[in-house]
Amino acid sequence: MGMGPAAMAELFITRISLFPILFFLSSYAAELPINVWPKPVSFDWPSPGAVLLSPNFTVVSPGHPYLKPAVDRYTNAVKTEHHRPLITPALNLTSYTPLKLLNITVNDVDAPLAHGVNESYTLSIPYGGSAYLSAETAWGAMRGLETFSQLVYGGGGEEPRVAAGLRISDAPIFPYRGVLLDTSRNFYGVEDLLRLIRAISMNKMNVLHWHISDSHSFPLVLPSEPELARRGAYAEEMTYSPEDVKKVVEFGLQYGVRVVPEIDMPGHTGSWAEAYPEIITCANMFWVPPGTSAPLAAEPGTGQLNPLNQTTYKVVKNVIHDTIAMFPDSFFHAGADEINSNCWNTDPSIQNFVSNNGTLSQLLETFINSTLPYIVSLNRTVVYWEDVLLSPSISVGSSLLPRENVVLQTWNNGPNNTKRLVEAGYRVIVSSADYYYLDCGHGSFLGNDSQYDQPPGTDQGNGGSWCGPFKTWQLIYNYDITYGLNDEEAKLVLGGEVALWSEQADGTVLDARVWPRTSAMAEALWSGNRDETGKKRYAEATDRLNEWRYRMVGRGIGAEPIQPLWCAKNPGMCNAVFPFSE
Amino acid sequence: MGMGPAAMAELFITRISLFPILFFLSSYAAELPINVWPKPVSFDWPSPGAVLLSPNFTVVSPGHPYLKPAVDRYTNAVKTEHHRPLITPALNLTSYTPLKLLNITVNDVDAPLAHGVNESYTLSIPYGGSAYLSAETAWGAMRGLETFSQLVYGGGGEEPRVAAGLRISDAPIFPYRGVLLDTSRNFYGVEDLLRLIRAISMNKMNVLHWHISDSHSFPLVLPSEPELARRGAYAEEMTYSPEDVKKVVEFGLQYGVRVVPEIDMPGHTGSWAEAYPEIITCANMFWVPPGTSAPLAAEPGTGQLNPLNQTTYKVVKNVIHDTIAMFPDSFFHAGADEINSNCWNTDPSIQNFVSNNGTLSQLLETFINSTLPYIVSLNRTVVYWEDVLLSPSISVGSSLLPRENVVLQTWNNGPNNTKRLVEAGYRVIVSSADYYYLDCGHGSFLGNDSQYDQPPGTDQGNGGSWCGPFKTWQLIYNYDITYGLNDEEAKLVLGGEVALWSEQADGTVLDARVWPRTSAMAEALWSGNRDETGKKRYAEATDRLNEWRYRMVGRGIGAEPIQPLWCAKNPGMCNAVFPFSE
Repeated sequence: MGMGPAAMAELFITRISLFPILFFLSSYAAELPINVWPKPVSFDWPSPGAVLLSPNFTVVSPGHPYLKPAVDRYTNAVKTEHHRPLITPALNLTSYTPLKLLNITVNDVDAPLAHGVNESYTLSIPYGGSAYLSAETAWGAMRGLETFSQLVYGGGGEEPRVAAGLRISDAPIFPYRGVLLDTSRNFYGVEDLLRLIRAISMNKMNVLHWHISDSHSFPLVLPSEPELARRGAYAEEMTYSPEDVKKVVEFGLQYGVRVVPEIDMPGHTGSWAEAYPEIITCANMFWVPPGTSAPLAAEPGTGQLNPLNQTTYKVVKNVIHDTIAMFPDSFFHAGADEINSNCWNTDPSIQNFVSNNGTLSQLLETFINSTLPYIVSLNRTVVYWEDVLLSPSISVGSSLLPRENVVLQTWNNGPNNTKRLVEAGYRVIVSSADYYYLDCGHGSFLGNDSQYDQPPGTDQGNGGSWCGPFKTWQLIYNYDITYGLNDEEAKLVLGGEVALWSEQADGTVLDARVWPRTSAMAEALWSGNRDETGKKRYAEATDRLNEWRYRMVGRGIGAEPIQPLWCAKNPGMCNAVFPFSE
Repeated sequence: MGMGPAAMAELFITRISLFPILFFLSSYAAELPINVWPKPVSFDWPSPGAVLLSPNFTVVSPGHPYLKPAVDRYTNAVKTEHHRPLITPALNLTSYTPLKLLNITVNDVDAPLAHGVNESYTLSIPYGGSAYLSAETAWGAMRGLETFSQLVYGGGGEEPRVAAGLRISDAPIFPYRGVLLDTSRNFYGVEDLLRLIRAISMNKMNVLHWHISDSHSFPLVLPSEPELARRGAYAEEMTYSPEDVKKVVEFGLQYGVRVVPEIDMPGHTGSWAEAYPEIITCANMFWVPPGTSAPLAAEPGTGQLNPLNQTTYKVVKNVIHDTIAMFPDSFFHAGADEINSNCWNTDPSIQNFVSNNGTLSQLLETFINSTLPYIVSLNRTVVYWEDVLLSPSISVGSSLLPRENVVLQTWNNGPNNTKRLVEAGYRVIVSSADYYYLDCGHGSFLGNDSQYDQPPGTDQGNGGSWCGPFKTWQLIYNYDITYGLNDEEAKLVLGGEVALWSEQADGTVLDARVWPRTSAMAEALWSGNRDETGKKRYAEATDRLNEWRYRMVGRGIGAEPIQPLWCAKNPGMCNAVFPFSE
């Protein structure tokens, strides 16, 4: 009955010896002999080959204040990167003359970097002659330049080569592809932000969502409210001056990356109390009052703006005004997540309000009504966390949140909340904690936590992480952000955003915590996570992502390895299931 | 019935306002105003204060080839480190003259760095006059120098200060305190190894267990068997030459860190097949033969030495000989974990052996009998993974493993296997995967794994990590490696070792994956994880570890943050439970 292991093994050996494994490997390798991440939508390459890149290679492009530095950067990069792919591309070097010119045409050179800007491009690299990159906008041209740079390989001892005989037509599926970085729980230097923007751009993503302030620190120096950072930042050297912000924003423009600021309010504002104790409720209290099980905040670091205090609005409007003056992007993120009843209820004026039959949701309405129109008057689309509409305890009606001015960012409850938001008619940015929270699976940061002192053998559960387990690149890659939506609803999904909440992160771990996992989202949102037949293409993506990770490392991004190098050198051999045709 | 949230909150506010929170904070702060990690066993400091460190500060020490560079290093470090503690130490600067001299005496200058060497020291820093460090051995003096360096703070704009009026007596509880680094699945540069040794030494640990080779690559260049690395390394630049090894070993001696080499065999040897295909069974096969659920290895990367092939022993003895010649430490780790029946069963000669009523355990016996005596003849204690004795499928009897020559390293089944090993009379190194495996909780590295493509809402379990969840510093800190042992049994536990298996790690993530979690083990094994009353001291350790993490970062070790900086600046406020006396 059945085959014994030895017999089975023998059968297997026989089969293997009939078909040398190298044969399988070559037939298994991704169809393209060179890797572009994210994979372009259309890659037409009838007879793959390569030409040398001329030492005199130049790029001709229309005049544009931000495309120009990008052109200079890429012109230099392709000559000096000398990337050696993990597996040498099976591309014959043709005898055609080296490529000397990339000619860029842009149809609408005036299109600003803004949500929904056309990022499409086509890139042709014929054998012999010049290469052509045409794009509707300068920002699309930047995406095409990135693709071009990834088609160049080798060099060092010899001249670099560039894949040739090809034509790529490319454009993103989703217009919004972002990374959230929290610079309040722990501080990041400007150089960290610039490096992050650089990597975002490499991955053809286009938004840095800068969660600047929170209850833990207020690092942004504002001309009208300098005391907020002077007292609320961790240290003088842990602040962002207006010059720092300008540097980040300009850098973003040169890399085609929008910088969307978030000033989280009215919750998550404990740090404001250092300068304005009178406008913050429950500031600096122990987060779970002793003898209760009613936390004042989702985590240590308490404090919320008091909507009943008129000084609140004076400060808030100055903050909004100054922040918007520094950040030209048309989106302004105003937070509104995790508003805590207990925190507001510690305040005598609010207690009085409640005892006169007021509700906390009315307090939030007051706050929104006193701030949202002001933000809109400054020509900004307001982004809020979903809580503002969906929180079961404190939320406002949709009548206060005009759909033309408001975008909602979802993070709870997987696709269910996305569905609720689009059903309510809102445009949505998807940051599901189940898939897109990069900090998950790393334990809890709480001190004196007895859960870590249990007898051996006790189930360790998720290790204390509220959103554990760790979100692997595969999990991120496979998530469909329009899951369960009909076509009309899906149109309201602007895109997705991974989030690095920084309770346990700062500049020392930034790169590895973000990359290459975020590259997985980058491809899923750019060209999708499925092949032509509609099948999820995560198997084929593994080797490509591995290769892309090494290229990022070569570019100074400390992305973490996803596999033993052996796996990249032996494609398919590290798969969970036998990958080769039998 | 009961108190409403508002009333409860009011009560809390009243109480808080009666006792300003700063009062609680100062009384809660760790009793010592300066942080030494790991915490010394005895710290006598009747009236805490500080003196300046003289710009002419010098250290006088006995002549010793390895103590001398350590003295030079620390003399320079205390003058240039300029560490600013997160919370300024509450230490009055006295008017005593600056400290000009640290006088070191060593009782036994000839004691070599070896297992069990005396690492005790006493350090006295009086007010006025010279400081004294006395130790039994040069290695103990190095531990004392590390302590001294951590008592120095400030500087930069002003002169550094040193805590004074104190006397420390210190010695480790466990003689073996190590870090395992796997350089086979992914390669690490020599500079990574040196940086790791430096951090190991800072934490008063004393062993780098270098898991050099495995099935994925063989990076060690051996004079007698150069083909192993030439063909089995990932690349020529991804090898360790004899000169590299010498550099690492010498560096270790200068830092008081033993370098224990591991050549894992007879399993985990797939990479040997690149040079010697004839001595490796099941090499380069897909790890789970198609149509079976009988893996050939614990993970992709198959291959085991064939104990029936006489060439095996020729090669193995050369490998052992050359490795031992390069590594002077008295321990040699010979692996012997995870030997896979299916892999051996693929081999015709082994199939023949089995069909003649031979067992696979007999094969392992043959291998052990042909190698263990040789290693012992070269004056080495042999370390094996516990599997060699405890594996239910392939193991050998204890009669083949002389207790005086063999140490066993446990990794499975928490404290239960430790217990089994000491009951069998063996000395044990504890590396329980449940606590000490630093790679856990990071998902799986397998490609084409459908577990990551499940419908939203599906339980994500442990995220695909076989040993998930992530091992937090708290979990590591609290583990008692002699749990469940009586006093006699406990004496056989030499110490503990964290392990960084490198499927998803290399130099880009080394520091943050190892530190400061390993610092938690360092203290638990040096002075314990309990206070004077026997209570686990993880609460008090949190702020100290946070502070220590920043000091390590200042020293160029990219340790990850464990909390928002806010927590360090507000001691106790990030605790899970209310920490202040009421």
